[in-house]
Amino acid sequence: MRFFSDNAAAACPQVMEALVQANRIDTAYDGDAWSEKLDGAFSDLFGKEVKALWAATGTAANCLGLAALCPPHGAILCHELAHIEVDEAGAPGFFTHGAKLTLLPGHGAKLSPETVDEACARVRDDVHQVQPAALSITNATEYGLSYRPDEVAALGEIAKRRGLGFHVDGARFANAVAFTGADPADLTWRAGVDVMSFGFVKNGGMNAEALIFFDPAKAADVPRLRKRAGHLQSKGRYLAAQILAMLEGDLWLANARAANAAAAALAEAAGPDRLVYPVEANELFVRMAAGEAGKLRALGFDFYDWAPDEVRFVTSWDQDMGHVEQLATAIRSL
Amino acid sequence: MRFFSDNAAAACPQVMEALVQANRIDTAYDGDAWSEKLDGAFSDLFGKEVKALWAATGTAANCLGLAALCPPHGAILCHELAHIEVDEAGAPGFFTHGAKLTLLPGHGAKLSPETVDEACARVRDDVHQVQPAALSITNATEYGLSYRPDEVAALGEIAKRRGLGFHVDGARFANAVAFTGADPADLTWRAGVDVMSFGFVKNGGMNAEALIFFDPAKAADVPRLRKRAGHLQSKGRYLAAQILAMLEGDLWLANARAANAAAAALAEAAGPDRLVYPVEANELFVRMAAGEAGKLRALGFDFYDWAPDEVRFVTSWDQDMGHVEQLATAIRSL
Amino acid sequence: MRFFSDNAAAACPQVMEALVQANRIDTAYDGDAWSEKLDGAFSDLFGKEVKALWAATGTAANCLGLAALCPPHGAILCHELAHIEVDEAGAPGFFTHGAKLTLLPGHGAKLSPETVDEACARVRDDVHQVQPAALSITNATEYGLSYRPDEVAALGEIAKRRGLGFHVDGARFANAVAFTGADPADLTWRAGVDVMSFGFVKNGGMNAEALIFFDPAKAADVPRLRKRAGHLQSKGRYLAAQILAMLEGDLWLANARAANAAAAALAEAAGPDRLVYPVEANELFVRMAAGEAGKLRALGFDFYDWAPDEVRFVTSWDQDMGHVEQLATAIRSL
Amino acid sequence: MRFFSDNAAAACPQVMEALVQANRIDTAYDGDAWSEKLDGAFSDLFGKEVKALWAATGTAANCLGLAALCPPHGAILCHELAHIEVDEAGAPGFFTHGAKLTLLPGHGAKLSPETVDEACARVRDDVHQVQPAALSITNATEYGLSYRPDEVAALGEIAKRRGLGFHVDGARFANAVAFTGADPADLTWRAGVDVMSFGFVKNGGMNAEALIFFDPAKAADVPRLRKRAGHLQSKGRYLAAQILAMLEGDLWLANARAANAAAAALAEAAGPDRLVYPVEANELFVRMAAGEAGKLRALGFDFYDWAPDEVRFVTSWDQDMGHVEQLATAIRSL
Repeated sequence: MRFFSDNAAAACPQVMEALVQANRIDTAYDGDAWSEKLDGAFSDLFGKEVKALWAATGTAANCLGLAALCPPHGAILCHELAHIEVDEAGAPGFFTHGAKLTLLPGHGAKLSPETVDEACARVRDDVHQVQPAALSITNATEYGLSYRPDEVAALGEIAKRRGLGFHVDGARFANAVAFTGADPADLTWRAGVDVMSFGFVKNGGMNAEALIFFDPAKAADVPRLRKRAGHLQSKGRYLAAQILAMLEGDLWLANARAANAAAAALAEAAGPDRLVYPVEANELFVRMAAGEAGKLRALGFDFYDWAPDEVRFVTSWDQDMGHVEQLATAIRSL
Repeated sequence: MRFFSDNAAAACPQVMEALVQANRIDTAYDGDAWSEKLDGAFSDLFGKEVKALWAATGTAANCLGLAALCPPHGAILCHELAHIEVDEAGAPGFFTHGAKLTLLPGHGAKLSPETVDEACARVRDDVHQVQPAALSITNATEYGLSYRPDEVAALGEIAKRRGLGFHVDGARFANAVAFTGADPADLTWRAGVDVMSFGFVKNGGMNAEALIFFDPAKAADVPRLRKRAGHLQSKGRYLAAQILAMLEGDLWLANARAANAAAAALAEAAGPDRLVYPVEANELFVRMAAGEAGKLRALGFDFYDWAPDEVRFVTSWDQDMGHVEQLATAIRSL
Repeated sequence: MRFFSDNAAAACPQVMEALVQANRIDTAYDGDAWSEKLDGAFSDLFGKEVKALWAATGTAANCLGLAALCPPHGAILCHELAHIEVDEAGAPGFFTHGAKLTLLPGHGAKLSPETVDEACARVRDDVHQVQPAALSITNATEYGLSYRPDEVAALGEIAKRRGLGFHVDGARFANAVAFTGADPADLTWRAGVDVMSFGFVKNGGMNAEALIFFDPAKAADVPRLRKRAGHLQSKGRYLAAQILAMLEGDLWLANARAANAAAAALAEAAGPDRLVYPVEANELFVRMAAGEAGKLRALGFDFYDWAPDEVRFVTSWDQDMGHVEQLATAIRSL
Repeated sequence: MRFFSDNAAAACPQVMEALVQANRIDTAYDGDAWSEKLDGAFSDLFGKEVKALWAATGTAANCLGLAALCPPHGAILCHELAHIEVDEAGAPGFFTHGAKLTLLPGHGAKLSPETVDEACARVRDDVHQVQPAALSITNATEYGLSYRPDEVAALGEIAKRRGLGFHVDGARFANAVAFTGADPADLTWRAGVDVMSFGFVKNGGMNAEALIFFDPAKAADVPRLRKRAGHLQSKGRYLAAQILAMLEGDLWLANARAANAAAAALAEAAGPDRLVYPVEANELFVRMAAGEAGKLRALGFDFYDWAPDEVRFVTSWDQDMGHVEQLATAIRSL
């Protein structure tokens, strides 16, 4: 009974069916019928004309977006525990040709406007210091917190005032929308976001993420950067088809709600004292002695140790609710 | 009736079935059961212990391989019409951090040992000139010629003598093997090749290529470079499964034979006078007046104009043989 | 008696004196009294408001200029024998983060508008091919030819029409001005040039070159790039002082005239049949059998063999005219 | 009376005289008589065969050294206030093609072995996290503290155990040697240091720093990297001559002692309560109310405000001791 990572889950049936539908000859690269629908589909979702590109991984989508916002001699402000800093093998440095990540603190991997503003204020405006060029947040965060629209807007306000491009790592954007109930527009462009990687792989996709530019003009060079980074697939229709299938009937939202519900059930079982952070998406960080974790593993539950006396559970769109109930019961019995 | 590009064809049924089989929870990234079989499967095929990594595109596979062979301050010798020079948007420059492509001539995009040797001899051994560090050929070439084992070995000899890493862009390696009937080992490591991108996408795959290091030690940093370039997919099993399905029962070879046979039938119809190059894979470059090309298009055949009075036909693993016969007949009637 | 290279000559007395004058405490980096005069001094010389920065080497000046004109995913069109291609160790690839040099032919390392235009026309406007972004010429060329104002203007016309930034490697710009007698403005901004590295080191300087932006707006990021490349010297006043000393009273032009005159004397001695190219600056490429070259060396003359039966002589601002006459006589006697 | 920065001081007479001596024709680049003596001169100084290269700036010397130790996908551990992080405009990211600086805390910009070891221990050994490849310290530090030989050795021990290359930014190495009285060998290679930028510009030089490789094998590619970065000057003899002049008779040490003595006199005047850090080189960070600083400025002393109620004084090799005494008196009178 696996609670390791949403990265390891299966692709959902609608995605598999879309691959079958797309499995016919069509124009190569992104000239096919599916790829050409992406801009429209996301423009409908966000209520605004956007430019949307597929990419096979979240790292690629994030870093292509960041490269569009930050020059090689600039800095990207992000949380010290952000995925782009901690788990992307230096990919932002690669895609931006050496831009710097300026690391900021914040509870649960969440940034506050004050922290961002102070970081900008500390930089002397001369040629010796790397000037901030972009702000990047993750929503939902790496620790399962969801930004509310007004929180994003406050960051967007600072970004605008400081002249920063604003990027969102939306690997679990669906979970944030599912939790907050917010309009996707209010969590993005209405709050000042310029570009977002919109995650599908952790949420029932196979290998397709979307990179959304809320100002299409900012995407001008990105198709070229994507090709140059080896991310323009010759049969791109299979990626576009996955994404369109997940947008259809808001499947992305339904999948995220399922994952969040499983996490919420576990959170209730754990109770507030055990939770390191509030559970606002599909991840739980739970205080648990090594002996307790051992008991759960003995019962057949798989999950990661995260820190001394702390474990992580992640739930997926297809998490077996029977397993979830068993785990909830087991946690309550500790 | 499309003769545009093998890039646009469908994925073959065995690949689609493999995706279904891989569609269950498993370890993320490349720790899954399928990915872990790749080294063994390719070691069996090549009769030697190799290191094999999947990547979604040929550009990524080529450029990760080149980055392993050439430092930022080195040069890669290749044909002036090589795909890495002409059609990869400068990706070699990106992955190698600015290494130079030194362009060499040769009929049909094929390099000769003399040309390579002379290019090396022209470089002064000082700090002012970029020193050659790698040799790259494409087999089958961009113009449909297949290198024979002794031709590759002669290049390998020069590479060894000049201290060059030796890379093969094997986007259509299957077609070269199918045409020459050579042992894959004789076209690669026995001939001195260090690394090859082994193409599957043009040959019935969906979005998985293999990057093969014949000396596993040279691959030491490559998994890290792959991650840093955003090419480590979190559900890598779907890529590995495609590749394993195509290795199973030598499906890769059967598919390439089918594509080659279609091209051979068209070549026979065109006759030697019309052929710009001998047809040794699945591509034909055919002398044809604009009016003649127009007649074929009027009959429903789609293909690219390549140069004044020259067109290109590419056949695929699943080319409808009825269409091929119709096209052959139409060409004969011109 | 050395005719190896103008790179090896001494610094002229006015430059040495300027260093002494600048040898007092002043503001660090480029905030000093000398550096602040550069913009004005070059604006006067060119009859237009320009932005001028010092750099210690021609390679740095060239590549900072190119980086301002060409993105990492673009191409720079230049002659196949251009210094930036042949003798800068791949520095353009380093400073531009991997941009491509597209190499063009032309007699005496000189480019023609037709060649440039055709090279642009050959590039498909899609994401697969690297798009031309800049044009670079060397004036005087690496083989001692000087572009005339109308020749530069014709190239500037193409650059403008094709949307290319226009860079001049002016390592020997002084020699070109001295030979043609042209107004510096007519060889640069009036002919469409955007940026030029203006060489002083080969012409009597010690270690200071100037990078001139004819449109100051294009220089916006360059002070930052210069610092990032380690080229912002903390005691920059010594570089600025050298340059100002050479601008004073047109010393740069007097020095170049002296070097050109020495070369002209040798050219007359060699006669048209021996000259590979017309001598329009301070370099001669002379047809000469190995035995003949040996005779000259036996008389105490030092110079480079350049090709089979071809040697190169370079004259300097301080070339001893007695030595020149001796060499002229010796050449006549061959 | 300037106490802004040692960067702004004049060059010392012996350096000026060396330039005059070097002002004659000689071999270009680094083939001249002066450059060829560098290896020997530094090998004598350090009691070990070393490889020494000149570079015009400390940023270039530091970053060429770091590029030799750290691959693009690696991390360099350094203090969060290190010059390479704070004041080099992202140059380490440029020269290393995107390597990461991992920032560590420590009083007075000094690192402890424990901090370095813990930083290494925090990194998971997988492809998702950037692996530490090098350690960089500054001696004397940016806040004027000098590492003792045993402190460097303890860091060298960790570096060796963790497989890190060990770099020293020695912009003020002379001041550290002057303060500690240590053997240069004990502060470098005997303590495990691999490469050091040895500063001369802040200590009486004009524009020449030395980059020292204690293991010459590690310098193999560096002459090439230097050229590629535009740092190979064509008249390199003027840089080598400056350095040789400062090594002659240990002028470098005498100059540093003079600067340190001036700082020590000021430190005594300020007294321990005002000093933010002990004064172990030529910099003082002094607690001082804005009004007090204003009084000093009214008396004609120039210096930087560093933080609220904190100012910085820097002394130079040629600081006028009369001015120093006046300043000391003025500080005492506050």
